[in-house]
Amino acid sequence: MRTIGLLEMKRVLPTIDLVEALESGFVAYSQGKVVVPPVGELLFQDPPGDVHIKYGYVPGEDYYVIKIASGFYRNPEVNLPSSNGLMLLFCQKTGRLKCFLMDEGYLTDVRTAVAGAIAARYLAPGRVNRIGILGTGVQARVQLQYIALATDCKNVLAWGRNSENLELYRKDMERAGFNVATTRHAGEVAADCNLIVTATVSTSPLLHNAEIRPGTHITAVGADASRKQELDPAILKRADLVVADSISQCCERGEIAHALRAGLLEKERLLELGNVISGAAPRRTSDSQITVADLTGVAIQDIQIAKAVFEAVRKTV
Amino acid sequence: MRTIGLLEMKRVLPTIDLVEALESGFVAYSQGKVVVPPVGELLFQDPPGDVHIKYGYVPGEDYYVIKIASGFYRNPEVNLPSSNGLMLLFCQKTGRLKCFLMDEGYLTDVRTAVAGAIAARYLAPGRVNRIGILGTGVQARVQLQYIALATDCKNVLAWGRNSENLELYRKDMERAGFNVATTRHAGEVAADCNLIVTATVSTSPLLHNAEIRPGTHITAVGADASRKQELDPAILKRADLVVADSISQCCERGEIAHALRAGLLEKERLLELGNVISGAAPRRTSDSQITVADLTGVAIQDIQIAKAVFEAVRKTV
Repeated sequence: MRTIGLLEMKRVLPTIDLVEALESGFVAYSQGKVVVPPVGELLFQDPPGDVHIKYGYVPGEDYYVIKIASGFYRNPEVNLPSSNGLMLLFCQKTGRLKCFLMDEGYLTDVRTAVAGAIAARYLAPGRVNRIGILGTGVQARVQLQYIALATDCKNVLAWGRNSENLELYRKDMERAGFNVATTRHAGEVAADCNLIVTATVSTSPLLHNAEIRPGTHITAVGADASRKQELDPAILKRADLVVADSISQCCERGEIAHALRAGLLEKERLLELGNVISGAAPRRTSDSQITVADLTGVAIQDIQIAKAVFEAVRKTV
Repeated sequence: MRTIGLLEMKRVLPTIDLVEALESGFVAYSQGKVVVPPVGELLFQDPPGDVHIKYGYVPGEDYYVIKIASGFYRNPEVNLPSSNGLMLLFCQKTGRLKCFLMDEGYLTDVRTAVAGAIAARYLAPGRVNRIGILGTGVQARVQLQYIALATDCKNVLAWGRNSENLELYRKDMERAGFNVATTRHAGEVAADCNLIVTATVSTSPLLHNAEIRPGTHITAVGADASRKQELDPAILKRADLVVADSISQCCERGEIAHALRAGLLEKERLLELGNVISGAAPRRTSDSQITVADLTGVAIQDIQIAKAVFEAVRKTV
């Protein structure tokens, strides 16, 4: 059994073609070639926390992967990061643990951000004027860091509730090469940006239908538990394309689940990201369309990134 | 984060009151004080293997526990044990990993065996003449090792399909202080033994209703996946008491699930082990009753043993 720590992971990640790893994973998933059981979940009330267990495998491959990720949103009060996690990679033939990836949630952050970039590659308008980011936490940062995989745009309008965190976000992201303005009004993000990423832990809509302009793409990544929500469900009703990372999972949690429950969306309208990538489902065809990608995070992403990191580390030794 | 290996675990286990830890866990579970989501499962066909993810917590305590255990039954062909596993103990307030128990499935074996002994304490007849064991694998061994917690009887009749494994079992268990005879006919076990433990990976009944004598207690531990089965469902129909470690789980997998599906058992007849322990449900009241305990393995057992081992190791350093 091999243990891989965060430093070693960060060292090999730049050598991995994450877009290729995740795109091929999403395509295989949408083609029904991946075994992904329903997400395991533990919810805590006091202090509030979510734990997700995502797991699965591609039959015939060498490994299966079990990922445990948590969000305890009051951790910063005790100087701990809110996200945490680990991945375990086992042999599909014997059940033996091959690799313990002590990523502290980092690989989940990265694979979520790469999925955001992939969604933008297929769904964002041809010319991105300004990138809108809702949220100032880890995922709001890493989404922006990886968005270069989809667009050259460096102009950003960031929204957050807390002005201190918002200012910190601005400084950090400026240092990472972006021009960042900030706002306390989410409506300004909707008015100014045609590629918007929502990455908050909100439990009620932050973006409202009336504010969204034609030609906007929104990637919603915050709502990975059924009680979370970032988008007015009417946006999904109005959108030309509504893309789920996993249709079955998005029917249970995330923005799509809210819109379905509100009767504003029909399941038949849902497209799946892997099919958009392979061409089996439509992608954006005009700069006036409104598109929404709802990313709840699928085990195939964890499988793909865990395999890639393990193989990359093995190769370098 | 602390890593505890098998040697350290085996060193502290004798200092732990496992019966107390598990009994109090079962009682809390049956009183609805434990959060235990449905078991996560991965099934492999070639080679055949099961992976179970069991997890949960007692609200208000310090930890939550996630246990991963596997059975790959052709592993012995490549000189690997068929069972494997690990447990992870996390902080309930922050989600941080506190302890990685690399038990290789050993704690699962032990907590299953202790549950078997607990079932026998409340359900076996007052005088055990002879202990019957079906199976010759790890669980068949550890069940017998822990049965001393319930009975002084040392006379054993063991059944197995493979005479070589059966002879090996006999020798090993004789060395552990038992008088062991062997048979290739499961019916002889039913005829001669009034405390029977079935611990095989069978997928069809090994014990038949006509063979079971009044006054017999059977603990079935082998069928932890829905495709596994060790008992003729008619035995459960006839039994005076049918006790599940978890009623909700046993309705999905194990002997009880088979009997329910066959229409030979009504859910209303099911008793839960925690209630039998606390006295909220009846235990054996006469030496002529037939009783069956169906143990599919509940996360509360993993929670209790993981906590106990972690605390014991911390105390000794």
